[in-house]
Amino acid sequence: MSHSRFTATYLIETAHDPEAAAAMMAGEQSAGTFVRVPGETNELRARHSASVESVTVLDEVDTPSLPGTRPPKNVANPRYRRARVVLSFPAENVGASLSALVTTVAGNLFELSPFSGLRLLDLTIPPAFIERYPGPQFGAQGTRALTGVSEGALIGTIIKPSVGLSPQQTAALVKVLADAGLDFIKDDELIANPPYSPLAERVDAVMHVVNEHADRTGKRVMVAFNISGEIDEMLHNHDLVLAAGGNCVMVNLLSVGLSAVSYLRRHSRLPIHGHRNGWGALSRHPLLGFDFRAYQKFWRLAGVDHLHVNGLRNKFCEEDESVIASARACQTPLFDAPGKAHAALPVFSSGQWASQAPDTYAALGNSDLLYLAGGGIMGHPDGPAAGARSLREAWVAAVAGIPLADYEREHPALAAAFRQFGSVAG
Amino acid sequence: MSHSRFTATYLIETAHDPEAAAAMMAGEQSAGTFVRVPGETNELRARHSASVESVTVLDEVDTPSLPGTRPPKNVANPRYRRARVVLSFPAENVGASLSALVTTVAGNLFELSPFSGLRLLDLTIPPAFIERYPGPQFGAQGTRALTGVSEGALIGTIIKPSVGLSPQQTAALVKVLADAGLDFIKDDELIANPPYSPLAERVDAVMHVVNEHADRTGKRVMVAFNISGEIDEMLHNHDLVLAAGGNCVMVNLLSVGLSAVSYLRRHSRLPIHGHRNGWGALSRHPLLGFDFRAYQKFWRLAGVDHLHVNGLRNKFCEEDESVIASARACQTPLFDAPGKAHAALPVFSSGQWASQAPDTYAALGNSDLLYLAGGGIMGHPDGPAAGARSLREAWVAAVAGIPLADYEREHPALAAAFRQFGSVAG
Repeated sequence: MSHSRFTATYLIETAHDPEAAAAMMAGEQSAGTFVRVPGETNELRARHSASVESVTVLDEVDTPSLPGTRPPKNVANPRYRRARVVLSFPAENVGASLSALVTTVAGNLFELSPFSGLRLLDLTIPPAFIERYPGPQFGAQGTRALTGVSEGALIGTIIKPSVGLSPQQTAALVKVLADAGLDFIKDDELIANPPYSPLAERVDAVMHVVNEHADRTGKRVMVAFNISGEIDEMLHNHDLVLAAGGNCVMVNLLSVGLSAVSYLRRHSRLPIHGHRNGWGALSRHPLLGFDFRAYQKFWRLAGVDHLHVNGLRNKFCEEDESVIASARACQTPLFDAPGKAHAALPVFSSGQWASQAPDTYAALGNSDLLYLAGGGIMGHPDGPAAGARSLREAWVAAVAGIPLADYEREHPALAAAFRQFGSVAG
Repeated sequence: MSHSRFTATYLIETAHDPEAAAAMMAGEQSAGTFVRVPGETNELRARHSASVESVTVLDEVDTPSLPGTRPPKNVANPRYRRARVVLSFPAENVGASLSALVTTVAGNLFELSPFSGLRLLDLTIPPAFIERYPGPQFGAQGTRALTGVSEGALIGTIIKPSVGLSPQQTAALVKVLADAGLDFIKDDELIANPPYSPLAERVDAVMHVVNEHADRTGKRVMVAFNISGEIDEMLHNHDLVLAAGGNCVMVNLLSVGLSAVSYLRRHSRLPIHGHRNGWGALSRHPLLGFDFRAYQKFWRLAGVDHLHVNGLRNKFCEEDESVIASARACQTPLFDAPGKAHAALPVFSSGQWASQAPDTYAALGNSDLLYLAGGGIMGHPDGPAAGARSLREAWVAAVAGIPLADYEREHPALAAAFRQFGSVAG
């Protein structure tokens, strides 16, 4: 019997005593319930109970952040205290099961009535998972090897419009983007295998362009084909991409789920590009759901190679600090064991152009990332090739520590990008 | 080319013009983006664009419900208007793909910066899904056939403590519960296939009891074994349950995901009992995430037979009206086509005992449901058999329209339940 434990860290808000509320969380998610039940011996409790490791009270507020909570009886004007809670669980409770881990740290907890807020901030992963979950197969290093980009940020884009392009129209656009010198091109999350662009036909048309481009230039663009769908379909479509010489598949993580991605990983011979659309529903209220620091660990265990993290000064709601925290989290080793970092390559996107490169590099401390721009490439006044060049120049300057305002003097593509987009942001 | 469309209904909150905000949602999730991009012809837009069908402004508030929103520039004191928005999408955009449907109606929308609230309330399913997604294999009727309960609510319970019981301890408890006369017994969501209770051993021990009980009494208790896990493991464990004479498998839906459940459904010869732990993270804030009315449709498409809906006067945060709306939704046909209702059996649980039966029946209008009690059975003063009897008596009275206060006069188990639990609730 192993006595090892793992921890989960939460932000809670409660009108009850925070220590008692934390104890209730521990009981609900392990051997205890509110009332002792038959069969629940002291020995069983000692072996299987979750424990409250710490409760750090933070601030307090007058009104509950979430509805439905039941404050203590006989309290006229309840105050809602926020606290950081660390629970520990016996590793034995979950074995090496990802779904059991998720249910244990993030199951019924969110609905418990003493809480007017409950968010999973972080967790540790029991060592038993190392063997069963091999993690990302390619990550940063493998993606660099496949694209031949040995240093600096990988520069990419998204095929737009999101929906409606035929396979031939898509291939024509991919030709423009490949000729522009990009490292990476991805399908939009809204297009997978629809009747107007069956994946088999799209792979055929696009890979014809990619292969021809590779033969001509020696550069093999990575195209992430959106294979999201039913399990059989995903495996089949992975095989199609592989057979056509493709080197990446994309999955809408939340739409297919953890077990499907984990299954694909075991079959896959290509990097899995993980799109997190839907994530807002799980994260946007600060006292509900998940921090990405916690959530991304599940997907890295499942084996996702690339993980979207939004971008600095993005067009969505997320603050820059949150974006950087997410990217750092993807690069932080999942296990202490050597060679078991299970790191994923963070993918920056949304409103990105040359200007965010220095801040992104400064905050992250490295350029092991995929940097996706749309308008920053297609909307560049001198065309897509100049757009791609402006991004690469910005990243070279960022890594070298040269201010963009200096670097653009001798780099006309970068200068033109600032003239075009400079008033829009940053 | 099909011109059929499907709709999605949202609750939004925005400081922008609600019509313009709705148009942005439609653009973001279909052919349009904020800026027209190359390749986006008028023909493509006409064929693939989502449309705003209606915008119904509701109330307005001073402060945004969610952080991160960007109000219009040059507005000193923005007001946040709430509105009900119906969008329609071309069915062709998603084909017959469940993951594409989810990404289309519930993808990046939640993070769009004009919105300080966005929740998916409901959606319709394109007819193309009928053929590809056969839906629940058993539902209410199939579950009744397997359990031999031709009318009235099915009465069940959950094995507690949640974690820690060995296979033999579990089997001993199942014997007590089967002898008590229950129709249904389920694993806790926290126990699937852990080292201390490997599923194979648990199935073996429990089914020995169940089979012996069936031989002796003619009644075959349905036991929902929690097979949640990796895909291979779930299929393997389904087969184990089937081979041992079992007649139900349980899955933690959110922990394994839609594609995994859909894959299991195609393999399964048993009802799939769907546990929705984790659902609170997606639903608890009223202006974020999902109404269950919308969310349960995805799982019925994937083929879940039983769906948890909480219970009246439950120990969690959910209001009674929401519980009933969820249960009704599970029973509402998914398609207009005959024989394609895809209905799931709603599962009531959490703090349930005899007292909630009349209100549940009155609100739902039928007894095609699974009614799970824990303390209401094991905590009954005259033992588990009397506990189970009290629940069945309450349901007979509810369906017959006899007040429990009258019925308990000649039904001592029911009377004892009220003496024991009457002060606790309802």
